[in-house]
Amino acid sequence: MTVALLAHEKFPEDAKTAVSMLRYADDEIVAVLDRDRAGTRVSDHLSGVQDAPIVAGMDDVDDCDELLVGIAPIGGGFDDSWRPDVRAALERGCDVTAGLHYFLNDDEEFADLAAANDCELRDVREPSPDLTVSEGVADEVDAEVILTVGTDCSVGKMTATLELYEAARERGADAAFIPTGQTGIMIAGWGNPIDRVVSDFTAGAVEEMILEKGNDHDYLFVEGQGSIVHPAYSAVTCGILHGAMPDELVLCHEAGREAIHGYEDTPLPALPEYVDLYESLAGPVHDADVVAGALNTRSLDTDEGARSAVDAYSRTLSVPASDPIRFGSDELLEALL
Amino acid sequence: MTVALLAHEKFPEDAKTAVSMLRYADDEIVAVLDRDRAGTRVSDHLSGVQDAPIVAGMDDVDDCDELLVGIAPIGGGFDDSWRPDVRAALERGCDVTAGLHYFLNDDEEFADLAAANDCELRDVREPSPDLTVSEGVADEVDAEVILTVGTDCSVGKMTATLELYEAARERGADAAFIPTGQTGIMIAGWGNPIDRVVSDFTAGAVEEMILEKGNDHDYLFVEGQGSIVHPAYSAVTCGILHGAMPDELVLCHEAGREAIHGYEDTPLPALPEYVDLYESLAGPVHDADVVAGALNTRSLDTDEGARSAVDAYSRTLSVPASDPIRFGSDELLEALL
Repeated sequence: MTVALLAHEKFPEDAKTAVSMLRYADDEIVAVLDRDRAGTRVSDHLSGVQDAPIVAGMDDVDDCDELLVGIAPIGGGFDDSWRPDVRAALERGCDVTAGLHYFLNDDEEFADLAAANDCELRDVREPSPDLTVSEGVADEVDAEVILTVGTDCSVGKMTATLELYEAARERGADAAFIPTGQTGIMIAGWGNPIDRVVSDFTAGAVEEMILEKGNDHDYLFVEGQGSIVHPAYSAVTCGILHGAMPDELVLCHEAGREAIHGYEDTPLPALPEYVDLYESLAGPVHDADVVAGALNTRSLDTDEGARSAVDAYSRTLSVPASDPIRFGSDELLEALL
Repeated sequence: MTVALLAHEKFPEDAKTAVSMLRYADDEIVAVLDRDRAGTRVSDHLSGVQDAPIVAGMDDVDDCDELLVGIAPIGGGFDDSWRPDVRAALERGCDVTAGLHYFLNDDEEFADLAAANDCELRDVREPSPDLTVSEGVADEVDAEVILTVGTDCSVGKMTATLELYEAARERGADAAFIPTGQTGIMIAGWGNPIDRVVSDFTAGAVEEMILEKGNDHDYLFVEGQGSIVHPAYSAVTCGILHGAMPDELVLCHEAGREAIHGYEDTPLPALPEYVDLYESLAGPVHDADVVAGALNTRSLDTDEGARSAVDAYSRTLSVPASDPIRFGSDELLEALL
């Protein structure tokens, strides 16, 4: 499929979804829409990802099957300055996908245009109406289930999960990626948005995905969310931990992070406390051990400093560690596969 | 307010909501509708609760302000055999309240009748559209926050919470009850149904209630849900623990329970493990200690056996314990107030 990514005024720093699509999606990205950087190319800003031209709007995009909203403002609303591009895409018969809290399908103009032009509006954050409570049977699948868990939000759990999944496949392992958030769902093209489901169905919505894929693969890499000590999002983390019934955990952390992001009065517990908490909370439902650590070293300028931070992280956790983006996933896969 | 309770074919054993209304609500219960037990009285079946006649249907109810659906079939659907009574109530201008997953407001016949007769349909399980993420500030209220936590579902957390709340008020303490489930909400006449909110808002929906009441009272008794090791519902439990930011926890358990109800392959952890888990999970957000234990001894026939079970429970937890229904709440309040 050919895809254009909408990232007006935000590419690349504040366009997490667009950048992740360029890095991980199998789709061909034909353009990035950013009116502030039109005329440059993705490769002028980022390395290690698909290249594509950056254009001012849909009128400068030749041919594409889908326009994907690759940015999300705080609150998850729809910015009306994006409307002309969404309208233009639909008028050309191009599907439009978004992961906003504002659902495109509830927008009358877009719904009418999609119907008239026989194309689809995909709100990946709208949960399926068929979700229900967990039966507690995710551990019955054949696959080994590996879950990323975090010390906080935004420490790199999705990235670590995708890096591990891709590296495992490069080694020839039969692995699948289980997405749980809107960006993961856009990359994978399927999945349940766990943070938007009814709270009673949190574990059940994860279990459903494990059961769907678990007997067709040897390894499932499950994208974690939040942190078990997050003042706002721990419910989602806990539901994923018990719904996925993982065999192995990868503890993800960002070097230098000392307090919960946005809740600066809440200091992060010591790292060994996280290991104890995740393992003792998982155990009564299904035994899971922290067997590897992923450290996000983006705040460290030198590779030398990053290497030494990774080594210290590994010693503290007593398990192999790496920054999968900076140093690859080899040490982690040795522990996991 | 005068209330009739619908409990067809289920009173009293399988009518938890109806029985709890009779036990705890301030409303005057004018009748219980149960076509199988019509002609008897509540006092023929239960002691220690309001008495009321049991009748076959709304036609036998004289005067009432509200019909409340006091039973919930598995799955939370609406049983069509209740329709004539709901219809009759609305035609008389009587409000109708339910805590089902099936919303009365979505039923065209009921919505039309309510509009025509100027009365209200209240679906207490439908969350407010204004809920959002927690700010992590519930610990800023003046009140001492006391949360019941459980070893499993259906061990008596709501009952323990209400007994403690009422006993505290009898002692002259300025206490409020914070409901988190549909029965608690019906009894209190307000509250957020935490198991139905968007999972990202689980903690936030509890925090909102703590902030609403926390500066007007000295003690808040918060109704817990589920269990932190429940394969399906732990997300709700975790969100309440972090959203309420309690100062003190009361661990609730049912004597003789050995496995998670409905998940018989999942044995309950040892009781001290629960204490460790709840305290170590709460700590990073707000310190909370298990300071008392509530043991539900309904399965034990003799008071002697129940007393000995309570004593053993107290020794195991190293905190005061009681069965608040059987032996009152004095020991617990000594530890809590």
